[in-house]
Amino acid sequence: MHLIIDGYEGDVDKLTSEEVVREFLDLCPQAIGMTKIAPPHVCRYMGPEPTDWGISGFVLIAESHISIHTFPARRLLWADIFSCRPFDAPGAIEELRSRFGLASVQTTLLERGLEHLPTAKVAYES
Amino acid sequence: MHLIIDGYEGDVDKLTSEEVVREFLDLCPQAIGMTKIAPPHVCRYMGPEPTDWGISGFVLIAESHISIHTFPARRLLWADIFSCRPFDAPGAIEELRSRFGLASVQTTLLERGLEHLPTAKVAYES
Repeated sequence: MHLIIDGYEGDVDKLTSEEVVREFLDLCPQAIGMTKIAPPHVCRYMGPEPTDWGISGFVLIAESHISIHTFPARRLLWADIFSCRPFDAPGAIEELRSRFGLASVQTTLLERGLEHLPTAKVAYES
Repeated sequence: MHLIIDGYEGDVDKLTSEEVVREFLDLCPQAIGMTKIAPPHVCRYMGPEPTDWGISGFVLIAESHISIHTFPARRLLWADIFSCRPFDAPGAIEELRSRFGLASVQTTLLERGLEHLPTAKVAYES
């Protein structure tokens, strides 16, 4: 199961904080019943475009991962929560919304597990 | 642009190799015109189920990432190539297919960039 979340109108201070990103990545796996296999990895990115800096972070969980990319100047966040087992997607969305003060979110859910084949929206080859 | 690739009937030796995964993560960003912001992180996972061990790895690129999870006992690979800019998706698929000897792949492409809103397949809130 792969939950893709794009969050809008977030809290700029939270989107700017490496600690807020790290804490989410550190606590989220246990909250959704998953096991970390390495500590979170978080870093700050300063790109050539003034609006494109932010915080990127990643944590590996058992055969899957959770990632976050923030764009404070755009008040935007991209998150992926990907697990080979089902989890509480609405709960994860609410946790993300609350931690980053997101006014709205847009989500995509792919049934991408060991029991399922993904639904191809654009199939190059099959 | 977020390319999701599930690959089947791969080469077991390649799917088992941390070095093959690391090399793909190390070279792929430049091949698709992206910039790494940290070295690849790769680790081996041994789960409670005999079939669920494998190699997991990711690399952070400018405000996005590339990740790989392999399941050698299932000859399966999951990859995500996520960039805020468009890239050569068929080329990336071919590179992945070749490096891991995948007999078939199933792909999903999300227009998830700074200029686009994602297409929600399941919207919890909007």
